[in-house]
Amino acid sequence: MTTTDQPIAHGSVENAMTQGDSPELTQLYRDLDAEHLHPLWTQLDDLMPMEPAPKAVPHVWKWSTLYPLAQRSGDLVPVGRGGERRAIGLAKPGLGGNTYISPTLWCAIQYLGPKETAPEHRHSQNAFRFVVEGEGVWTVVNGDPVRMSRGDLLLTPGWNFHGHHNETDQPMAWIDGLDIPFSSANDVGFFEFGSERVTDYATPNFSRGERLWTHPGLRPLSGLQDTVSSPIGAYRWEHTDRALTEQLLLEDEGQPATVEQGHAAVRYVNPTTGGDVMPTIRAEFHRLRAGTATPARREVGSTVFQVFEGSGSVVLGGTEHRLEVGDLFVVPSWVPWSLQADTLFDLFRFSDAPIMERLHFDRVHVDGGNR
Amino acid sequence: MTTTDQPIAHGSVENAMTQGDSPELTQLYRDLDAEHLHPLWTQLDDLMPMEPAPKAVPHVWKWSTLYPLAQRSGDLVPVGRGGERRAIGLAKPGLGGNTYISPTLWCAIQYLGPKETAPEHRHSQNAFRFVVEGEGVWTVVNGDPVRMSRGDLLLTPGWNFHGHHNETDQPMAWIDGLDIPFSSANDVGFFEFGSERVTDYATPNFSRGERLWTHPGLRPLSGLQDTVSSPIGAYRWEHTDRALTEQLLLEDEGQPATVEQGHAAVRYVNPTTGGDVMPTIRAEFHRLRAGTATPARREVGSTVFQVFEGSGSVVLGGTEHRLEVGDLFVVPSWVPWSLQADTLFDLFRFSDAPIMERLHFDRVHVDGGNR
Amino acid sequence: MTTTDQPIAHGSVENAMTQGDSPELTQLYRDLDAEHLHPLWTQLDDLMPMEPAPKAVPHVWKWSTLYPLAQRSGDLVPVGRGGERRAIGLAKPGLGGNTYISPTLWCAIQYLGPKETAPEHRHSQNAFRFVVEGEGVWTVVNGDPVRMSRGDLLLTPGWNFHGHHNETDQPMAWIDGLDIPFSSANDVGFFEFGSERVTDYATPNFSRGERLWTHPGLRPLSGLQDTVSSPIGAYRWEHTDRALTEQLLLEDEGQPATVEQGHAAVRYVNPTTGGDVMPTIRAEFHRLRAGTATPARREVGSTVFQVFEGSGSVVLGGTEHRLEVGDLFVVPSWVPWSLQADTLFDLFRFSDAPIMERLHFDRVHVDGGNR
Amino acid sequence: MTTTDQPIAHGSVENAMTQGDSPELTQLYRDLDAEHLHPLWTQLDDLMPMEPAPKAVPHVWKWSTLYPLAQRSGDLVPVGRGGERRAIGLAKPGLGGNTYISPTLWCAIQYLGPKETAPEHRHSQNAFRFVVEGEGVWTVVNGDPVRMSRGDLLLTPGWNFHGHHNETDQPMAWIDGLDIPFSSANDVGFFEFGSERVTDYATPNFSRGERLWTHPGLRPLSGLQDTVSSPIGAYRWEHTDRALTEQLLLEDEGQPATVEQGHAAVRYVNPTTGGDVMPTIRAEFHRLRAGTATPARREVGSTVFQVFEGSGSVVLGGTEHRLEVGDLFVVPSWVPWSLQADTLFDLFRFSDAPIMERLHFDRVHVDGGNR
Repeated sequence: MTTTDQPIAHGSVENAMTQGDSPELTQLYRDLDAEHLHPLWTQLDDLMPMEPAPKAVPHVWKWSTLYPLAQRSGDLVPVGRGGERRAIGLAKPGLGGNTYISPTLWCAIQYLGPKETAPEHRHSQNAFRFVVEGEGVWTVVNGDPVRMSRGDLLLTPGWNFHGHHNETDQPMAWIDGLDIPFSSANDVGFFEFGSERVTDYATPNFSRGERLWTHPGLRPLSGLQDTVSSPIGAYRWEHTDRALTEQLLLEDEGQPATVEQGHAAVRYVNPTTGGDVMPTIRAEFHRLRAGTATPARREVGSTVFQVFEGSGSVVLGGTEHRLEVGDLFVVPSWVPWSLQADTLFDLFRFSDAPIMERLHFDRVHVDGGNR
Repeated sequence: MTTTDQPIAHGSVENAMTQGDSPELTQLYRDLDAEHLHPLWTQLDDLMPMEPAPKAVPHVWKWSTLYPLAQRSGDLVPVGRGGERRAIGLAKPGLGGNTYISPTLWCAIQYLGPKETAPEHRHSQNAFRFVVEGEGVWTVVNGDPVRMSRGDLLLTPGWNFHGHHNETDQPMAWIDGLDIPFSSANDVGFFEFGSERVTDYATPNFSRGERLWTHPGLRPLSGLQDTVSSPIGAYRWEHTDRALTEQLLLEDEGQPATVEQGHAAVRYVNPTTGGDVMPTIRAEFHRLRAGTATPARREVGSTVFQVFEGSGSVVLGGTEHRLEVGDLFVVPSWVPWSLQADTLFDLFRFSDAPIMERLHFDRVHVDGGNR
Repeated sequence: MTTTDQPIAHGSVENAMTQGDSPELTQLYRDLDAEHLHPLWTQLDDLMPMEPAPKAVPHVWKWSTLYPLAQRSGDLVPVGRGGERRAIGLAKPGLGGNTYISPTLWCAIQYLGPKETAPEHRHSQNAFRFVVEGEGVWTVVNGDPVRMSRGDLLLTPGWNFHGHHNETDQPMAWIDGLDIPFSSANDVGFFEFGSERVTDYATPNFSRGERLWTHPGLRPLSGLQDTVSSPIGAYRWEHTDRALTEQLLLEDEGQPATVEQGHAAVRYVNPTTGGDVMPTIRAEFHRLRAGTATPARREVGSTVFQVFEGSGSVVLGGTEHRLEVGDLFVVPSWVPWSLQADTLFDLFRFSDAPIMERLHFDRVHVDGGNR
Repeated sequence: MTTTDQPIAHGSVENAMTQGDSPELTQLYRDLDAEHLHPLWTQLDDLMPMEPAPKAVPHVWKWSTLYPLAQRSGDLVPVGRGGERRAIGLAKPGLGGNTYISPTLWCAIQYLGPKETAPEHRHSQNAFRFVVEGEGVWTVVNGDPVRMSRGDLLLTPGWNFHGHHNETDQPMAWIDGLDIPFSSANDVGFFEFGSERVTDYATPNFSRGERLWTHPGLRPLSGLQDTVSSPIGAYRWEHTDRALTEQLLLEDEGQPATVEQGHAAVRYVNPTTGGDVMPTIRAEFHRLRAGTATPARREVGSTVFQVFEGSGSVVLGGTEHRLEVGDLFVVPSWVPWSLQADTLFDLFRFSDAPIMERLHFDRVHVDGGNR
């Protein structure tokens, strides 16, 4: 779909109907209200803007601020049945006090102290974890213990039991991503308590899901039925790093491999379909060469980035923000964004793109070219 | 998915963490808030309930109330560029004053006076109209004039220009259904003004889309590319009525044809795929024999019914509501509903089921049988 | 895919290897043969030609010849268990004496005398019947009696029991189309005898499948599971005729509706998917205005036409053939064909296109434009 | 689909029609023949058997016989433009002298001498190579050099240019699998000559396709469009071996991972879809523990096995055949087969299952359980 370069706001059109209402009209509005009825014509601009007009205000959360606050929570708040998780949600300014980083996505820093266990439960909401630093925690997903290490993406798709435990004497923190806002707004969520402890305290290097499913181009004959979400529990950093490294090497050799010059990227996928890892959440990893700047891009839907390595900046709706390791920011729908890399710059990214694409609301505009 | 018959609320579990907070904890909460951070553990019950807990309160809008209010609007409010439509939205009590019949769906009564024209525009939001009474209006969709008559379902899928004009000396009212709440909450909507008048004032009995696409089991060779939404602009009452009549006759002959004893039903579909007419909205028509009562059913997602013919009642979350021609009600997510027919009872239905199914949140529970 | 305009045959390349074989080489070929081994290099041109080189020779079967021969069979050959059907297959010259109209398709004229019954059976092979003249026979498909009348397409998809009975004092003949050659060559067919008589001698105007499934754009809620083949047993002439009539009228009005100027066409489809009626066979109906000539077209796969009404001619691989009502011809793979209409010219068409498309061998070349 | 355990052959039913034909009938048959018409009733048993009755006779080709014959061909027959490949096809006894291992599949041993080059060409036919011994050849697919080593599966999907060159002083042999018989029978093939030499004589360890596409669960953002065939040019033995090893280890741990007790297996897949590597050919690798015997299994469609490691036997239609490394055998459609492993037993397998499944002819019967 092409987009309008110079949209004319509804507001620029005279709307006589909302000005100087007569007594009869005022009475009508009152009568409508009493019957739980609202006229469209008085609120059209707000309900149906010329283009997406997100209420959310751009904001960057600094890891250097987040981590110490998570640590203090670790000292003060126990983890266990009831509260379930020591997770602190990033609450986008502008979204009316909701613990939401976007209308669809929830993002939190979760913190688990030495030897602690977060009890098992399951819910309709799809969830993942991404580890920007540390190690020593295993998440147990439907009985399969999954090691969590730096750079790994770990999945807990909807309705899988899961709990976490820290095997070490050191705390560990990571980010959680879920579709809680979507689920909450649309009343789709179920929740069930599981074991008070994790069901398996084994600490294998590789989960059973990985051992069955992470052989490239190979599918077990015992797993020929496609699954809604990926059967891979852990996407390891070593694979991601190698894939990105090869893309840049291929680019050096003059081969098509990167998204655009200096910009390598992979999408995490469900090997049974080649599609997104979960029905509501897309996850990607991006690597920019030092000096690379991406063209400004607008997309319908919201997306969150976390810096994994290196430094640079993002221009969000015209404002530049400096970024360092662990920093998080959200791009609301249709806000133009552009990344600049000072060093080799690695970013994890997740978004609600599967929702937009499955419902055919996706639209993209790139400066200097449309898609 | 099976469902828990006796869900245990989070609230039934003692959550010591939210009671009697220490000064240190109070200070932590304050510091978190200052950094746009919210703990999960203090709000888990609200964000992730044991099962969908919609805020919306059941409500029935009576046609006998709606229509006169629409008429008064017709007398007092002009229709034209800016306000665009004389549409009055049904605002579900409990949804915080939003003009929403559900978190995803918008439903309104639209009223067009004698010889009036509603100007053309287009928007990302998917829309349809259903006519419970009257005739004489043509809606012009991408230049194709579509007659609107009693019992017809008319589509204006996302990003199709459309306007309406009344050819007669009588006013006409109908209901509009759109995905405005979904679009507004998730910031996906674009809007564009079109002609101030409709682009074609012809009044053919059948639109071009119908003439190409409503020959059963036949597809034009000029239309072999599947389309996101149905290419049929009008689903005529005569077809719907005949389909339902045949189902009940087949049932009389002992053949499988109805959904359940005494309950005939059709889904309106996109002939290029056999799937739903639009990516976000499902439309169906249900007919119950006099005396039929459907088993209580719970579904994830929200659905709206309008009585088209006959009388009966609905039990919504345990409360019975009497229903007559034109009456509208919404079933919020997971609220049990059951229909009872006093006479032959015809109901139009629309819902957000395509959203739920495409994102794999769909779940159904029927009394006396699970799916 | 584009195609080579001037293909160079393998034969035009000198192949030293097959000429003047030495005694050692001759001995090698003998030794290979003894071990059931064949060199590729001596037979490459035949196995892998530069473009499809069908062995079949173009041929037109005249209805004026076919029908009397079918009549004589009616007088001499009983119909019943064992032989099962009084069907006479069109045997393409060039296919080595096989009863095949093409490598994938079988086409026969079937003849049923007054009051005769062809017993029930089922098989993996997909079958249809098309009626160019006559009436009075019902085919009973899985117990559902289906009237056969002029211009109707009747389906018996794989593994459905079916038998036929003639209710009248007049004989009736029609054409059968099946995927017998494909099934026979690839050893995929199963066969099972059913009732010696048809299981239901009722003679309703409309079958139960039609009563459930031929309401345009409507799908019964009792039939939400997609089916491999169409649930519609009969595609009636009145619908086909109306669809084609409307396309030409729309063309008159300057609207896009026909495939090309003067050429209306519909594909028969499975309403649960919008795709072909059966997994191996495509069926279409084409109507040309008097005076219309289609551009020469080449397609991978084989296709059969039967003239239904009017007269004209076909140019097949450069040779023109006159055509009248009932005449049948096959277009082998990649042979250019072009139709000319003397009068309003109606043709039924079937082909193996679903096989070609599902296996991605489809390729088309149209004179004056590629696809 | 279930299957009939005790099928009644057509032949067991008396068919009076083919015996003692009258002079009139004899004349009719003569007249039909003159018009290229064949009665169905005289040949029904052959055309439509009660269950698949392949003409092919079971046969095992011994590697110890094949390889020396290939070597002799290497001494006597040059490789180059015209003959194109030094490939020797396995010609199934019973298929009328065709160079076919089955009605759909072609299998050959290809032999390339020291420093030889097989020139580039492309064709519609889908092809792969599997290496049971040796190394030192690179196949260049659309300009991408792909190393061929023991245990690797190498793809050249339809219409990709490809040539081979041997970098070493040793000859190398491998097996080729193609859909030539299907393509030839159905007239779907195109062929085009390319470079007389390979276009790139580089000898990298990993092809560009592998470097982009073999990172488990990761998809390059530059490759988001699904492809008909796999973009992976080489499936390496180290991955296959590891996947099978893990399955047996998981089985040891009591976890579901193998197809059946003692039987590990993987399917090679297209990472963009999770489906088969090419539209017509399925490829798998099976590993049996010593002592394992698989239940007798019948499948619609034909399949070829090559022993890669270990020894054992196959029972094919009731006859046992001993198997050693490199031996090849084909299972015609619906012939029961069962494998017995004397040692750890590794077998490569390919089949036409994608054809059967896409056209819905697939059917399986396993002794002691139906599917």
